[in-house]
Amino acid sequence: MEKTKIIVALGGNALEEAGSPATAEAQLAVVKKTCTYLAELASHDYEMAIVHGNGPQVGRILLASETAREVTPPLPFDVCGAMTQGYIGYHIQQSLKEALARVGKGHTPVVTLVTQMVVEKDDPGFLNPSKPIGPFYTEAEAQVLMAERGFTMKEDAGRGWRRVVASPIPKEIAEIDSILKLWGSTICIACGGGGIPVIRQANNELSGVAAVIDKDFAAALLAKQVDADILIILTEVENVALNFNTPEEQPLRHITVAEAERYIAEGHFAAGSMLPKVKAAVQFARVSPAKKAIITSLYKGTEALAGQTGTLITLE
Amino acid sequence: MEKTKIIVALGGNALEEAGSPATAEAQLAVVKKTCTYLAELASHDYEMAIVHGNGPQVGRILLASETAREVTPPLPFDVCGAMTQGYIGYHIQQSLKEALARVGKGHTPVVTLVTQMVVEKDDPGFLNPSKPIGPFYTEAEAQVLMAERGFTMKEDAGRGWRRVVASPIPKEIAEIDSILKLWGSTICIACGGGGIPVIRQANNELSGVAAVIDKDFAAALLAKQVDADILIILTEVENVALNFNTPEEQPLRHITVAEAERYIAEGHFAAGSMLPKVKAAVQFARVSPAKKAIITSLYKGTEALAGQTGTLITLE
Repeated sequence: MEKTKIIVALGGNALEEAGSPATAEAQLAVVKKTCTYLAELASHDYEMAIVHGNGPQVGRILLASETAREVTPPLPFDVCGAMTQGYIGYHIQQSLKEALARVGKGHTPVVTLVTQMVVEKDDPGFLNPSKPIGPFYTEAEAQVLMAERGFTMKEDAGRGWRRVVASPIPKEIAEIDSILKLWGSTICIACGGGGIPVIRQANNELSGVAAVIDKDFAAALLAKQVDADILIILTEVENVALNFNTPEEQPLRHITVAEAERYIAEGHFAAGSMLPKVKAAVQFARVSPAKKAIITSLYKGTEALAGQTGTLITLE
Repeated sequence: MEKTKIIVALGGNALEEAGSPATAEAQLAVVKKTCTYLAELASHDYEMAIVHGNGPQVGRILLASETAREVTPPLPFDVCGAMTQGYIGYHIQQSLKEALARVGKGHTPVVTLVTQMVVEKDDPGFLNPSKPIGPFYTEAEAQVLMAERGFTMKEDAGRGWRRVVASPIPKEIAEIDSILKLWGSTICIACGGGGIPVIRQANNELSGVAAVIDKDFAAALLAKQVDADILIILTEVENVALNFNTPEEQPLRHITVAEAERYIAEGHFAAGSMLPKVKAAVQFARVSPAKKAIITSLYKGTEALAGQTGTLITLE
């Protein structure tokens, strides 16, 4: 029998706890806890791959790099993203392997693949970069960075100036062949942080760009490319809700793609928070009535896969 | 017919040019040049994997991290190593893919695997750490770092105090299964920087340690584990030499393991430079008379494999 193929997208709370120290050591403790939940999923004989975010981590690498720029050259943003794939991937593969051993699956290989994600040079996101990254600057400093390093900088809600980059749509996973070769035998951690953003030049060569790819869209693309049965997006809340955080809040258990699109149009989901998750789920579920997209809490994955909680999005 | 299996170990000059700016952009240009040589090797239908060093890169990441420690928590050294695997691996996989395309091999998958390297907790290296890493400090700063963060610090030849870590012998590649699964179909970049150093705890779990693993020893271990035919260590010089840098300098073309061991005992090879390369070559060649270890210049790999230059080390 074919096993169920599943892509797991891990949000920020899977990697770092709000209020805990922003150290790699504290993060590792959170990742270890997260991996006990992932091992529980894996013990159900799913074939799976894992996509993770990298927002706080890449932000701090950039902050350190820019703070130290007088003593060592600052690193380009695509390289910072590649670094987080090594950093977070290492923590997950180490922690998942030990969590798998505790559920009798210690023989399952787990490995992180450094992954480039192709975006389109003329993605509308590049025309109006809006994703703030890295430290805050004074206006004078911002002027220098714009002139000398070609950054796009914007004033950020009275808190100072910040660099902004595009958030383009992922189109192609450069290392998909390797992911497919390992699929089924190995749990791959891939497309970390949404993948390292690259554009395809006229000569077909790839070249890194400063951009932030949404990890949920990356996970949806990966789910499509491996022909996954399920895309599960693990986040803070157990269910997607209408009128979130109001007295009329109404959790959703099972909605169709058409319903999800209507709720999106009605503005129920916050940009940069639930909106990309619902959009990624819709993108995946749209392909066929057999595809299931699930959005639920990090701690409820197993129950959600058993249909007991979470928000399920399907075509029909 | 079985193809020849080859492990390529890349030294510092494959990743960065002496005297060029220490930026990631300048490094990428060097990596692109390096990859034209690697693609030339790959076009001879070898099955290959690549191991690279990370000394200057991990040093600068650590320098940035420690310089910025008042604004963002400094990163542990094992995490810095994992970050260089993402960083350098990304550059190599992007550049090698385009170089392969130029020799008609653009279909060959190339991917970086984040790799942990198991070292022994009681490796003698841990008793007397001697590998300096990261920035220089005053004695007063060093005292604080020793007391507050448990670092081992040593005075470095009148230039100030530096942190020192162990350089243990690699014993086991945690992700060897994944490398073996991809072997033959895919060019893997693995064990970058010698691998992320981890020790195996009593409960069998892995845990990161601050250490530097020699990338040549890592490459020799990988070569053994994939049962490679050839280990080629690419470095600055075309040949290993006796009486190096003296009027009696004598390049070596083909030596046996026994001869190499005698020259090692006679002190011909500099610690931290040619010595680990020759030791790694000996370790690999010792296994069987069919194994070939080659040490040569980055630019002479193809000629050395054709027996036209380089230093060949074999058992008999």
